[in-house]
Amino acid sequence: EIDRERFIETMKEQADIGATDGGGLHRLALSDEDKAIRDWFRDQLEALGLEVRVDAFGNMFARREGTDPDADPILIGSHLDSQPYGGIYDGALGVIAPLELLRTLEEEGRVTEHPIEIVNWTNEEGSRFQPAMQGSGVWAGVHDIDAEYDRTDENGERLGDELERIGYRGDIPVEPQNDYEAYLELHIEQGPYLELEEKDVGVVTGVVGFYWGAITFYGEADHSGPTPMHYRNDALVAAADVITQVRRIPGTLGDRTVGTVGYVDAQPNSINIIPEEVTITFGFRDPSDEIVAEAKERVLAEAQTAAQREGLDWEWEQRHQSDSVEFADTCIDAVQASADDLGYDSMRIFSGAGHDAVHLTDICDTSMVFAVSEDGKSHNEDEYTSWDDCYSAANTIANAAYRLATD
Amino acid sequence: EIDRERFIETMKEQADIGATDGGGLHRLALSDEDKAIRDWFRDQLEALGLEVRVDAFGNMFARREGTDPDADPILIGSHLDSQPYGGIYDGALGVIAPLELLRTLEEEGRVTEHPIEIVNWTNEEGSRFQPAMQGSGVWAGVHDIDAEYDRTDENGERLGDELERIGYRGDIPVEPQNDYEAYLELHIEQGPYLELEEKDVGVVTGVVGFYWGAITFYGEADHSGPTPMHYRNDALVAAADVITQVRRIPGTLGDRTVGTVGYVDAQPNSINIIPEEVTITFGFRDPSDEIVAEAKERVLAEAQTAAQREGLDWEWEQRHQSDSVEFADTCIDAVQASADDLGYDSMRIFSGAGHDAVHLTDICDTSMVFAVSEDGKSHNEDEYTSWDDCYSAANTIANAAYRLATD
Ligand SMILES: NC(=O)NCCC(=O)O
Ligand SMILES: NC(=O)NCCC(=O)O
Repeated sequence: EIDRERFIETMKEQADIGATDGGGLHRLALSDEDKAIRDWFRDQLEALGLEVRVDAFGNMFARREGTDPDADPILIGSHLDSQPYGGIYDGALGVIAPLELLRTLEEEGRVTEHPIEIVNWTNEEGSRFQPAMQGSGVWAGVHDIDAEYDRTDENGERLGDELERIGYRGDIPVEPQNDYEAYLELHIEQGPYLELEEKDVGVVTGVVGFYWGAITFYGEADHSGPTPMHYRNDALVAAADVITQVRRIPGTLGDRTVGTVGYVDAQPNSINIIPEEVTITFGFRDPSDEIVAEAKERVLAEAQTAAQREGLDWEWEQRHQSDSVEFADTCIDAVQASADDLGYDSMRIFSGAGHDAVHLTDICDTSMVFAVSEDGKSHNEDEYTSWDDCYSAANTIANAAYRLATD
Repeated sequence: EIDRERFIETMKEQADIGATDGGGLHRLALSDEDKAIRDWFRDQLEALGLEVRVDAFGNMFARREGTDPDADPILIGSHLDSQPYGGIYDGALGVIAPLELLRTLEEEGRVTEHPIEIVNWTNEEGSRFQPAMQGSGVWAGVHDIDAEYDRTDENGERLGDELERIGYRGDIPVEPQNDYEAYLELHIEQGPYLELEEKDVGVVTGVVGFYWGAITFYGEADHSGPTPMHYRNDALVAAADVITQVRRIPGTLGDRTVGTVGYVDAQPNSINIIPEEVTITFGFRDPSDEIVAEAKERVLAEAQTAAQREGLDWEWEQRHQSDSVEFADTCIDAVQASADDLGYDSMRIFSGAGHDAVHLTDICDTSMVFAVSEDGKSHNEDEYTSWDDCYSAANTIANAAYRLATD
């Protein structure tokens, strides 16, 4: 078991960097706050005598060597960036837990056959720069690095320039430098299921597939007063129809299906002008890729109907697509065995959020541990996981990693 | 009849100030473009030997004296500010026509018993700062001047400061400095009725009542993936319900009833966060104040139902309220007689848009002339009125004013 007091202190320490007045974190990828937390993280690793390696996309690695020169490392980590006004657990918990594992191994003088490597992935959140899970995606070969360097935030700042600015564009190529035995990640659940079932930890068996798109309707700006209702081509009315259907479609498909319109932009956005151009995003997720595809088809059919009803042109584009993944039995079993050994009440769970672990499944055997999220709340300053639940999850992943590393 | 060539040239000249690439105007109230058109307007009046007076709300007046010292002036004008990416006729036509009247009277050496006074009202459009018809409203005593100075635009710029900045906070008190015999205003119809009936000009008998409000829904930000549909409190879904009903309510009330949601703002507006706070505006208009009140009640009832369905808090506020007004027979008759004398085919029409003339009905007898709006389109760069139609309407109001001034 890791040191509970030090673990909690370290969680609090990291939460001071980019802290918001509302008790949350505002530590957007490649911001000054991200630089500060990266510097802090580097210091913690160097204090353990570990060498920190930074790749050309800012992903940070450090390895504690094993005894067997032929054994591939166990990789374990998550992300230190946050959502805008997000919570203090999302991502950070999954970096602090392996840090405590390394500290504990060092303190207790334990050796492992396999090296244990810790990682902090760049821009998991996908809020300032899209897509989410970007650093791990480039590293796993899913994204082209030059295209990702060229992404800009809403102020037009280029990702590659920001990476350079904060001093985290490293020298190491953005790809695995060796084979890996396994990847493990601890994250808060961000959903309500563990709490509902009164479990201590979640053994994650996979991640839902998801599809993100954007729809733009083109109507005609006109005066909101003298223009009769039947003369109108109101882009916002069609967008409202789609928003309503995105709320409704999941309930016709599956009990884990979700659909969200998180973003809307209307032009010219004036109280007395009929909206001319409206863009909304949509996202659907489900463990079944077929259901996600069906939801997407239905929302596009609704957009077509709504556009026709209002006399609008419209178009759509894909923003992100990710197949559902199933984790490897070896890793799932290691997590399960740890939870059982430690006496934690656990359940198998499929993740509804995307995680860096998704990309890692292309590289090596992978699984995750979930910590209980009170009320299922995240991406919100009120995100909360009790220290007990944080500690149970951290012990579970530490033991699973140790188990795999000493196999 | 006024000088057709010079009138058209002057219309084109004004349209250069704040011109958009799309052939329209972006001349928001109290912007640099508004300052430029005001300077230009002042120059035109001074070139006629007239003294320009600016009141403390930026309303600009100039008077051509009459022969009878006891006769009250005829006031005639409109506004030079525009909607965002609006058209070149909306407002401007109603200022250029009386300018041409003054030029013609001067040129032909005509005298009138009553003085003729021209006016450019501040912020008729109500887009950058609410409410619309603001300058005339303060002048007519409908609004408190200090409250209106304190209005801010979406960037937080204060109206009073902007007025100062562009140099149009004048010395004259914002109220009528004398009695007025009548107020006349020429404006494009902004609706399709004149064109549908193939008329040359419209004789305006009144203006619809209208009600503008804003509704804000307060939900809870949460992760768009792991949060089950039944755990959500999605502020945008309720807003969509209201948008849909605003499109629907008019069709259950009257054939001139209209309803519009022109503005939406969602927070945090992120593709993978459930919308926490959404504000929309709504507006209803009808010749009957009872119908407007009924529409408002229905939309608030819908907001209540939608908020309850989504588990949201909500609140609303009034943004603007204006009773339906009927113009004075004396002025309507003068406009009708001018149109008839000039051989124009006319029809009586009730305005679906608000105009400064609405506030003037509190001060003196009032009426308006409408010019044909092709396709009824306005508040859009494609707004179009043929020069023939502009000219017919300009002649109609010029003659009506001359008729009243020489009575
Ligand atoms: N875990 C997490 O919040 N990932 C961000 C990408 C997403 O799932 O929306
Ligand atoms: N005429 C005009 O566009 N007025 C602005 C106020 C309104 O929306 O009616």
